[in-house]
Amino acid sequence: MCDACVIESVKAQMLSRRALFQTAAAGVAAAAVTAPMSAPALADGHEKVKDMTHELHEDFPTYFGAQQFFKDQKFKFKDNGFNLFELRVNEHTGTHVDAPLHFSEDGQSVAEIPVANLICPLCVIDVKAKAAENVDYQVTPDDVKAWIDANGPIPDKACIAMNSGWAAHVGSDKFRGADAEKKMHFPGFHIEATKMLLETGAVGMAVDTLSLDFGQSADFATHYAWLPTNRWGIENLANLDAVPAKGATLVVGAPKHRGGSGGPARVFAMV
Amino acid sequence: MCDACVIESVKAQMLSRRALFQTAAAGVAAAAVTAPMSAPALADGHEKVKDMTHELHEDFPTYFGAQQFFKDQKFKFKDNGFNLFELRVNEHTGTHVDAPLHFSEDGQSVAEIPVANLICPLCVIDVKAKAAENVDYQVTPDDVKAWIDANGPIPDKACIAMNSGWAAHVGSDKFRGADAEKKMHFPGFHIEATKMLLETGAVGMAVDTLSLDFGQSADFATHYAWLPTNRWGIENLANLDAVPAKGATLVVGAPKHRGGSGGPARVFAMV
Repeated sequence: MCDACVIESVKAQMLSRRALFQTAAAGVAAAAVTAPMSAPALADGHEKVKDMTHELHEDFPTYFGAQQFFKDQKFKFKDNGFNLFELRVNEHTGTHVDAPLHFSEDGQSVAEIPVANLICPLCVIDVKAKAAENVDYQVTPDDVKAWIDANGPIPDKACIAMNSGWAAHVGSDKFRGADAEKKMHFPGFHIEATKMLLETGAVGMAVDTLSLDFGQSADFATHYAWLPTNRWGIENLANLDAVPAKGATLVVGAPKHRGGSGGPARVFAMV
Repeated sequence: MCDACVIESVKAQMLSRRALFQTAAAGVAAAAVTAPMSAPALADGHEKVKDMTHELHEDFPTYFGAQQFFKDQKFKFKDNGFNLFELRVNEHTGTHVDAPLHFSEDGQSVAEIPVANLICPLCVIDVKAKAAENVDYQVTPDDVKAWIDANGPIPDKACIAMNSGWAAHVGSDKFRGADAEKKMHFPGFHIEATKMLLETGAVGMAVDTLSLDFGQSADFATHYAWLPTNRWGIENLANLDAVPAKGATLVVGAPKHRGGSGGPARVFAMV
């Protein structure tokens, strides 16, 4: 059924719908008054939920530099009685998941990541001060050791996140940090820290930048070491300042399209 | 930056990446052996997490009948050293969220739904037996009253879900139930039950079918009554047989694209 056909078939019913809408809206307004929204409902054992997701829009910075998210309005409330958009998006855009398949021949697709691996203890390694001094900073084994000294062993099936402070730069050119030669400058995980984490039971790795590897990487060493082990990654994670170094539970709302190498995800942290 | 340019610039680095991949993969294989995945990590207070999301693919049934999900492979591991797809999808495809903006002029967009409303108590109204007898079944006020009699008052800020048993039909024509006149037949919420729920503090409504309104609806009465009050909906919810009538916590991984009327979502239930 072509869009044109759809539009016609839908427009044909608009008058009756709009008429009903007037009635429904009236009744609804009254109901809304009698049912004001109140305190939030949260998962047992947690007091707060934090949204770790950046809002996605046409100008969201991308690794390749070109626009990767497009929105085409197919139906408009004023004309059709409802709003509907068709989206076009590169899987690796905005706050998104890198599935093992992204950097492997036959790793898990985003739909194949075990659900048990998408809800996990969150460990946050804060390297903001170092990254503020050096935009090409890479999380080192010493940074991981310092986290363990302060917080104890990395929990089983955890996600280790780098908080470089880059989420604050998402609205400026500093987020990509492209230089005169168009080479990017932003922090990431050093391959040696990655190898150290591979010796733990961690299931995921997250960064608040455009890539698990730092912007200057020419070989994607961390991607190639981490993802083929059927561990996942999250890039462009937001709001890491709002969660503790240890104790939060990350909930990764990964997309579930068959055969996908990843995709925009809604990520929450329960604190 | 055009795709062709991107492909060229990426291919230019492939040799070095592929060489490194051989090395990385070898080290990784060893690490994988020393770090086998073990027991799942779950949110405090919950023993299990259930995936309430259908896998999305090109042939997933749609309300309008035409294909609404498309996948275009831009980079292939064998040729480019990594896999990456561009997706094209109608917001209202697969297991997805209807944002208030879907059926209102200025309701909350999918990015504007308060996070506190996306993690909520789940109430499941089982109408499988009635729907098995009548494909045009609509959840009635009596069904809601029966749930309350058995489970107590509807919790504040809850999501009320209809379990019609339709998730089991997602792979067959029965899911849309199109007849000779191409009119659809599947269950949904009756407008009177919807008005009853509008008098509670419920924040969301979910169905395991293609629409909050039953397939025969010509006026989208439930959509027009529910969504403009800044309450959300979920359509094509999966796995409702795996959760109790009361007591589960629904986690709605709604997409977060600016101005969206909804979109494919990853939905979990913590039991």
